[in-house]
Amino acid sequence: MKLATYRDGSRDGQLVVVSRDLSTAHYATGIATRLQQVLDDWNFLSPQLEDLFVTLNHGKARHAFAFEPRLCMAPLPRAFQWADASAYLNHVALVRRSRGAEVPDSFLTDPLMYQGGSDDFLGPCDDAWFGAEAWGIDFESEVAVITGDVGMGASPEQALEGVRLLMLANDWSLRNLIPPELAKGFGFLQGKPATAFSPVAITPDELGEAWQGGRVHLTLQSTWNGKKVGLTEAGPEMSFHFGQLIAHLAKTRNVRAGSIVGSGTVSNKDWSRGYSCIAERRAIETIEQGEPKTAYMQFGDTIRIEMKGRDGLSLFGAIDQRVTGPEALSQTEDVAAP
Amino acid sequence: MKLATYRDGSRDGQLVVVSRDLSTAHYATGIATRLQQVLDDWNFLSPQLEDLFVTLNHGKARHAFAFEPRLCMAPLPRAFQWADASAYLNHVALVRRSRGAEVPDSFLTDPLMYQGGSDDFLGPCDDAWFGAEAWGIDFESEVAVITGDVGMGASPEQALEGVRLLMLANDWSLRNLIPPELAKGFGFLQGKPATAFSPVAITPDELGEAWQGGRVHLTLQSTWNGKKVGLTEAGPEMSFHFGQLIAHLAKTRNVRAGSIVGSGTVSNKDWSRGYSCIAERRAIETIEQGEPKTAYMQFGDTIRIEMKGRDGLSLFGAIDQRVTGPEALSQTEDVAAP
Repeated sequence: MKLATYRDGSRDGQLVVVSRDLSTAHYATGIATRLQQVLDDWNFLSPQLEDLFVTLNHGKARHAFAFEPRLCMAPLPRAFQWADASAYLNHVALVRRSRGAEVPDSFLTDPLMYQGGSDDFLGPCDDAWFGAEAWGIDFESEVAVITGDVGMGASPEQALEGVRLLMLANDWSLRNLIPPELAKGFGFLQGKPATAFSPVAITPDELGEAWQGGRVHLTLQSTWNGKKVGLTEAGPEMSFHFGQLIAHLAKTRNVRAGSIVGSGTVSNKDWSRGYSCIAERRAIETIEQGEPKTAYMQFGDTIRIEMKGRDGLSLFGAIDQRVTGPEALSQTEDVAAP
Repeated sequence: MKLATYRDGSRDGQLVVVSRDLSTAHYATGIATRLQQVLDDWNFLSPQLEDLFVTLNHGKARHAFAFEPRLCMAPLPRAFQWADASAYLNHVALVRRSRGAEVPDSFLTDPLMYQGGSDDFLGPCDDAWFGAEAWGIDFESEVAVITGDVGMGASPEQALEGVRLLMLANDWSLRNLIPPELAKGFGFLQGKPATAFSPVAITPDELGEAWQGGRVHLTLQSTWNGKKVGLTEAGPEMSFHFGQLIAHLAKTRNVRAGSIVGSGTVSNKDWSRGYSCIAERRAIETIEQGEPKTAYMQFGDTIRIEMKGRDGLSLFGAIDQRVTGPEALSQTEDVAAP
């Protein structure tokens, strides 16, 4: 099943069911109006949405319309929790190596995870507005799950059963704000502005055999200013699977329905696969050439993040955003000129 | 105006208006069912609730009933954001001094704040369940505000205008889980389990002249196992006022309605006023005697947090919790035996 949230002027938008091929959609009116509502009462509401999904796929839904990702908010426009891991240890190792630091042994068994802001997510095609290019604007291409209720102390296996939906995420990061922030010891705050999510959230069964052991065994594409910079494999090198990540979060508290847990930047040991965030490219440049060569993003830059199934079709639709800011207006006009 | 959320078996509970003296309450049915709904549409809904509050205070509300804090969930049982500061620099200085560290100059101008989990808050009288006493169970008595919408880049003055409601908070902390967690660099996660809030959230005008310059100029009482351990002044030594804290949070992103921002442990330079968390007591003991003497909380311990107005009446009702855990059952039976 595939679900999206259409913009309707309200804070939570309007729930729509989207066809498997992302060509058509249908309002879920009569079943549920908001995605959080479905997550709050999954066992009762999701079978009804599944029925509509089947009808829609057969071309038999009477009020279907063409699906338009640009009309989407994030599937959950705001959520009660967003906790983002850094589950690809290759990424952690690269960034540390570039500054001459080791990866502590504990990182192999104890996941890195930060609590993010969840009150104001960006839609998949929303402009990302930042106060200054000097903040060090970077994308982070990730996979994320939305959970049901997972009780405190759940095992990784139990926690994995709590995965309800999957999405792609662009975990916007402000690299030049992060070092002084982390030095204070309280984690990220200003360095992690509003995160964007893919147009569509999908149930794990939509991944077929690509969903294995709590990992998504498919390629994540990152396209920066029209150039494919990352074709990273999301599956084999994910050091902790989603069940382990959710269980980590649930160690000392309940994780409630509608919580979003992210994988962190997808990263591979084979550098030829490219990168899912510029910071990683800069770490490699520092290791190879002594200093970073690639600049962070500028106003007017675009980033597209997408994942295709084994049939070549887009699974989640694309995150497709433009960076903008106080100086961006005139630039945008230049770009838009015929 | 004073608002609370009654437990009704649902995730968000039922909104009630509470009389100024906390003696009676009235369901807000017909105006709004949930507090988040009011925050989403404050200008339209809050005047209607104010009218009911006035009627209730005059003893003229027809379906009023006796207010019972034990039936309360947190005013927002789950929220889209919980960001907690450490705005009393005396606390920061004490904890650092006890381990031989200085307070960096930047801490005087750049607030400490962490992003907390907000999907599963505790009600004011809910048991606080922890997996082990060895986790280092500690309370933290705080003041917190609930905001309306505050735009990215808001000034402290603009941000202060965004304060809608105030509460007390008990920011439960697991002291022995925190050092290894902070050493990883991503901030708190397991070390900060579910936070509890006071029975009632109140509008700033209920504080009268005690609400000055974005600070609450009243005494916060912390009573541990029936002994008053803290009578700390929340006003004069709050190094950053709530407008500054919200503006800090809003530097790189919008802060949306229903966000909760905490003050951090209320702390005074005059040690005779006691403490609002055990960690601070232990820091003082370390400075004075070379090592901490006071142990953290044990299963069966109680903590009561309350603030009285200048008229001596409880403003928010009391947070009144018992610590419990896997070994607590038999202890509780002992305590409950006649």
